Amino acid sequence: MRIEARLEERGIALPEPIKPYPGVQVRFAWVRVRGNRAYVSPHMELNEDGTVADVYGKVGAEVSPERARKAARGAALAMLASLKQELGDLDRVTAWLTVTALINAAPDFEANTEVLNGFSDVILDLYGEEAGLHARMAPGVAATPFRQSVIVAAEVEIDA
Amino acid sequence: MRIEARLEERGIALPEPIKPYPGVQVRFAWVRVRGNRAYVSPHMELNEDGTVADVYGKVGAEVSPERARKAARGAALAMLASLKQELGDLDRVTAWLTVTALINAAPDFEANTEVLNGFSDVILDLYGEEAGLHARMAPGVAATPFRQSVIVAAEVEIDA
Amino acid sequence: MRIEARLEERGIALPEPIKPYPGVQVRFAWVRVRGNRAYVSPHMELNEDGTVADVYGKVGAEVSPERARKAARGAALAMLASLKQELGDLDRVTAWLTVTALINAAPDFEANTEVLNGFSDVILDLYGEEAGLHARMAPGVAATPFRQSVIVAAEVEIDA
Repeated sequence: MRIEARLEERGIALPEPIKPYPGVQVRFAWVRVRGNRAYVSPHMELNEDGTVADVYGKVGAEVSPERARKAARGAALAMLASLKQELGDLDRVTAWLTVTALINAAPDFEANTEVLNGFSDVILDLYGEEAGLHARMAPGVAATPFRQSVIVAAEVEIDA
Repeated sequence: MRIEARLEERGIALPEPIKPYPGVQVRFAWVRVRGNRAYVSPHMELNEDGTVADVYGKVGAEVSPERARKAARGAALAMLASLKQELGDLDRVTAWLTVTALINAAPDFEANTEVLNGFSDVILDLYGEEAGLHARMAPGVAATPFRQSVIVAAEVEIDA
Repeated sequence: MRIEARLEERGIALPEPIKPYPGVQVRFAWVRVRGNRAYVSPHMELNEDGTVADVYGKVGAEVSPERARKAARGAALAMLASLKQELGDLDRVTAWLTVTALINAAPDFEANTEVLNGFSDVILDLYGEEAGLHARMAPGVAATPFRQSVIVAAEVEIDA
């Protein structure tokens, strides 16, 4: 229980697993496990009770880069909550492979890298360089589900 | 021939495999098969003869969410036509892993989830929960090839 | 050293490996190697010395499709430089699987296919059809890191 211990050392509490918006039909897996891979659908910052945090609108216009970076960090914690629920133990994630952030960005926004560091910093801190390092991309997109400001997807290697 | 039988039961005819626009240089694979994986480039709704259906412009402005959802369903059928052509038998797809929809979205669009359900509903209906469930993302993008409204890519596990 | 020989035959010199912008915290891997896969973060056209080439702004407005296509070609060479640095030998790439280009596109842009052919043409020329063919997608996005016009990511199979 290495990752759980590190979360505790750092005083980080994971949120409850995500509670989708009322009335939304979830026709997909938040985490799709197959063989030694888990494919993770985009996660967003959550409140403690697993409801979606209030971070909506265009980053660089309605939402500051700092707030967006915090939302990317929150997305990492939400993803860890889902992985824990799905895998039982966060130590079963043996390698982070690739991460995709969708940033609901104003057309002149360009600090994508800084925003996504909010996500990567948590993962590298908890998993260390060898397991935690990942390729990643952070497109600024025209529209996200429900106008969320930052959502983050991933592919990880797991101990099958 | 489980999937073929289900298509027939439901009265669903797949279109002919995609016929690209005249004059377009296709320098990529519609389906890239390697080992136990098939990587599928973005597919779009097709007419019966495999020509591209007439669904262009911004979803939420020029194209309604309902029409876009139907286009996502059409993309699923087009993808199945390509997979059948490439693999010989749709039963060789043993698990859907991850799906990416690119929605040519108006900047205030937010019903991405509902649009992509048009794709996921078909796959879950035909393949069932265990093989058909998938992670997915649906960015609203600023521009798509030829201004198509909805195009959908995927990664699936296959029986190698 | 098949690929190196082909580069030489064609008179193509790879740039130095990428030098990130001064002051940018790189909290990710340009190439993430794990088992028989390498996941490659978005690369961009580089100058000979590995600094980022001057190709900024919206394709279809500030940057021509022709210039963007050249930038996609440059991204391929930059990616090869990174892969060579990481893997030691470009022959260790045994199959190109999937490629994602992020095009910083004007809202009415639609020549995504043509732009990305600049990337695919190089890869197919060097690796041939069997190893080089790939699935791909090329969303026109609202915003990229530092307003770069074209950046390209990939997943490849490697000889582990």
